[in-house]
Amino acid sequence: MGEFELIRHYFAAAPCAQAGDGVALGIGDDCALLALPAGQQLAVSTDTLVAGVHFPDPADPFLLGQRALAVAASDLAAMGASPIGFTLALTLPSVAEGWLQPFAEGLNRMARHCGLSLIGGDTTRGPLSLTMTVFGGVPAGQALLRSGARPGDLLCVGGVLGDAAGALPLVLGQAQADEAIGAPLLAHYWSPSPQFGLGQALRGKATAAMDISDGLLADCGHIASASGVGLDIELGALPLSNALLGLLGREAAQTAALTGGDDYVLVFSLPGEHLAALRADGWDIHALGRVREGQGVRLLDAQGADITPVVRGYQHFRETP
Amino acid sequence: MGEFELIRHYFAAAPCAQAGDGVALGIGDDCALLALPAGQQLAVSTDTLVAGVHFPDPADPFLLGQRALAVAASDLAAMGASPIGFTLALTLPSVAEGWLQPFAEGLNRMARHCGLSLIGGDTTRGPLSLTMTVFGGVPAGQALLRSGARPGDLLCVGGVLGDAAGALPLVLGQAQADEAIGAPLLAHYWSPSPQFGLGQALRGKATAAMDISDGLLADCGHIASASGVGLDIELGALPLSNALLGLLGREAAQTAALTGGDDYVLVFSLPGEHLAALRADGWDIHALGRVREGQGVRLLDAQGADITPVVRGYQHFRETP
Repeated sequence: MGEFELIRHYFAAAPCAQAGDGVALGIGDDCALLALPAGQQLAVSTDTLVAGVHFPDPADPFLLGQRALAVAASDLAAMGASPIGFTLALTLPSVAEGWLQPFAEGLNRMARHCGLSLIGGDTTRGPLSLTMTVFGGVPAGQALLRSGARPGDLLCVGGVLGDAAGALPLVLGQAQADEAIGAPLLAHYWSPSPQFGLGQALRGKATAAMDISDGLLADCGHIASASGVGLDIELGALPLSNALLGLLGREAAQTAALTGGDDYVLVFSLPGEHLAALRADGWDIHALGRVREGQGVRLLDAQGADITPVVRGYQHFRETP
Repeated sequence: MGEFELIRHYFAAAPCAQAGDGVALGIGDDCALLALPAGQQLAVSTDTLVAGVHFPDPADPFLLGQRALAVAASDLAAMGASPIGFTLALTLPSVAEGWLQPFAEGLNRMARHCGLSLIGGDTTRGPLSLTMTVFGGVPAGQALLRSGARPGDLLCVGGVLGDAAGALPLVLGQAQADEAIGAPLLAHYWSPSPQFGLGQALRGKATAAMDISDGLLADCGHIASASGVGLDIELGALPLSNALLGLLGREAAQTAALTGGDDYVLVFSLPGEHLAALRADGWDIHALGRVREGQGVRLLDAQGADITPVVRGYQHFRETP
């Protein structure tokens, strides 16, 4: 048995490799087998994280395991899917038990948190990178797409924005912060929580949804484009954490919220009549704008004036039509 | 739009991205959606190919696109699954149209050959590697596992063995051969044909199956271990191509057939009563041994004597229990 074959056995013994709901056959054969309840469709998404590109190299392996799975799983949540399982394709320069053990622990922790079972994968030698493919179930016809936003809908997000972008200089060791400020931001970066519950609660209510990975403006641009509508965001309505405000001040915190990636909260269009009931059910939803006729994403001040041209200076926004 | 976002659009426009049977939603949203007919399970497998490890670097991008998908799809065939789709996670050092265009053509060609639709993926910057996750459908309870081989079954393979191993020195430029010998070997290496038809024909007949990726002996070791049986292989019964015999001579060709990887033909255990009917249906099946009580894989000569100890000299076999 070669050393990379050993890793396979290592992960096959991990707690997250215990087959859960929807998994008819887990790790160990040519394929895993998934069994969906009647009337369900399978949601599938793939994400690759490359060392030095998508996370610092070296990175804490426990935190990396947590974060890699959360990033991938967030796409399932954004479809309104229920979690089933995931595959892990892990490429490593060498086999180091001191790395694999905490990595698997971080992976296990997030898998348990999300309710995802490890169903298969591949382990190979090469420059460090991870590809996760995640699987969820969603009732046929009820998946939350990007393409259904309608003029008049509210534009909402499922949590505060910009924390991960605020954390990045801390992650990279380019800045320091007091524990009270740094800890919550770093937690948001390293351990984002895929919003499965919210996504499922939005089925049949939200007209479009996605998770924020590239930044609010860039991702709103995707919804606007897929739905054939325009989106207006009120700058003052951006939900910002006290930690982010404490680190950056209001103006830079707003920029982080608009343009920073890696938030992994849901952004969605919602007919206004659903807002109160969702909030009454305890969902931390923030309305920050409206869907309108037209195209593109505009920023408005509190008086409704278009201030898009004066809030610039970052690549994603410039590139969004 | 960033350059890697452009690649996504590039692949989304590829012919293989046209949604086929079982694909309810293809590329472009947070997830793809698969819809299985009632009574079917979804077979899932993931394979990573790293440049310089699993294929030469540089490699012809057309051939690489073909081969990468075939390698991954072969796991579906080995389960007896019908093809549905695949995701492509492509990590590239830079964006070069001269590379992407032929790569996509090779991918498209194999996707069409297999009947697989590209349903999603990710494109990232980093050292060249590819991770494919493939999806197929199989009637519940009819998947071909590794674990059902029973003493008395025939041990069979679905085609000639060792051609890919024979081709490797040619692929790496370490050896040369006449066109008549080199061309078929290189074709086998660069464009293996996943045995979907055979896999489906074996449903309800073969008691265990897998595809040969690590080499006949190593992979037979997996079946023996998963099934709790021993396997006997008759050295003289190995199916060898004329090209391989011409390149290596009989003894080295047998070693290539036993220990060379990358053949991607099916190896399976089959109750003897099914052999004639399958052959009558046109399947090129070679019986090369028997399942027995016990454990491990033995090599026998034509008189049935155990010659395992004298046919050695390669890592996989030594490592197989």
